[in-house]
Amino acid sequence: MRIDVLTLFPKMFEAMQESIIGKAIENDKLTMNLHDFREYTTNKQRHVDDYPYGGGVGMLLMAQPIFDNIKEIERTSKVEKKRIILLDPAGKKFDQKMAEEFSKEEQLIFICGHYEGYDERIRTLVTDEVSLGDYVLTGGELGAMVMIDAIARLLPEVLGNNQSAVTDSHSTGLLEEPQYTRPAEFRGMSVPSVLTSGNHELIRQWKLKESIRRTYLRRPDMLAQAELTDEMRQMLDEITLEENEN
Amino acid sequence: MRIDVLTLFPKMFEAMQESIIGKAIENDKLTMNLHDFREYTTNKQRHVDDYPYGGGVGMLLMAQPIFDNIKEIERTSKVEKKRIILLDPAGKKFDQKMAEEFSKEEQLIFICGHYEGYDERIRTLVTDEVSLGDYVLTGGELGAMVMIDAIARLLPEVLGNNQSAVTDSHSTGLLEEPQYTRPAEFRGMSVPSVLTSGNHELIRQWKLKESIRRTYLRRPDMLAQAELTDEMRQMLDEITLEENEN
Repeated sequence: MRIDVLTLFPKMFEAMQESIIGKAIENDKLTMNLHDFREYTTNKQRHVDDYPYGGGVGMLLMAQPIFDNIKEIERTSKVEKKRIILLDPAGKKFDQKMAEEFSKEEQLIFICGHYEGYDERIRTLVTDEVSLGDYVLTGGELGAMVMIDAIARLLPEVLGNNQSAVTDSHSTGLLEEPQYTRPAEFRGMSVPSVLTSGNHELIRQWKLKESIRRTYLRRPDMLAQAELTDEMRQMLDEITLEENEN
Repeated sequence: MRIDVLTLFPKMFEAMQESIIGKAIENDKLTMNLHDFREYTTNKQRHVDDYPYGGGVGMLLMAQPIFDNIKEIERTSKVEKKRIILLDPAGKKFDQKMAEEFSKEEQLIFICGHYEGYDERIRTLVTDEVSLGDYVLTGGELGAMVMIDAIARLLPEVLGNNQSAVTDSHSTGLLEEPQYTRPAEFRGMSVPSVLTSGNHELIRQWKLKESIRRTYLRRPDMLAQAELTDEMRQMLDEITLEENEN
């Protein structure tokens, strides 16, 4: 996969060289090109922003540098399967399904804004307007990094263990059960005895039930959308009784 | 505000030195202490992770280094108003309201995981389990950076323009209207003529109505929760008619 990022702060993306995504780049599973779109300005002062028409607080990103930068990227990369993504609070909310969809593309181009907003005409360039969540950030860079991390870990051979990407929360539709590692007793807190019993069937049942319990208690909305087997449905009935007794 | 971050990848946070948050640190509006909790391991190999009890894919963060690191932070900082935040997909979803709440604390401590998960006993240390959204990341670092960015921009005097933090989407409860900057005509696309009319009252009405329209079209859930004045309600009626005609 090829990723291009339009940003005024390319140095921020050095953060991604650490950790698993950096290794993916080293191992050629991923290329990431950073573009400082200030280099595409045609005005003498190299301004990328200007005052909004009709007044208002703050500055807006101008259309011209973004248009010219995208044009240059498209000149050097003629792939069919690509998306141009604008990070914007008014966009569609990013989720695991979108990460999976984007992970199948050949090229992703991210436009990271700063200042108060964009000239509306920039939106005519993009295929996807995406929001990380219902909160406001100082710029689009961290949002793009989060999206790239979520997408790149789904690429083949990027995570060390191929199974890891599948078993996580938000991939199975249920939250993970409580998990424990050594020591069995730590500051008075013990591992549930079933987990050290060696009985694989009991362990499987306990994990499944506690995964359902956590989802029931914390994210009933996820549980409502999950496809439950008969076994899971019966566990849910038990949990409902148990939790209402408490 | 004092921020402490427990992470195996402290270098990732150099990304935050760019941009507005870095300036807030320079200007002493914010201090950020990065702690590599590997330094608190007591085992010879300096492992921070171990296999899960009961089997399963991947490794879990051990409790001991996290407990000892938190203890050391608390020894050196005896503030009352603090939160210990665990980045976790099973946590409460981060939003602007939470950012505002956290921005009023004296100290925030972030625990960033990696690997497949945490030893459950780590949760006994924390005041808040927070999820960025319904997607899976390779670690908690980017999530912590996003949260720190959203929180720090709300601190007094961090944003250059004091008004900016208030007028954004997700602060007003409505998405922003389309915005335009120079030139008035760009590649055949013109700025709506009202914005160059100089008539302040017409401009105000247009902006308000287009803000409502965008929220109506893209985020009806936000509109349902917003408090509307009589004027806004009438605009919404007009928009409903206009959009259903199209």
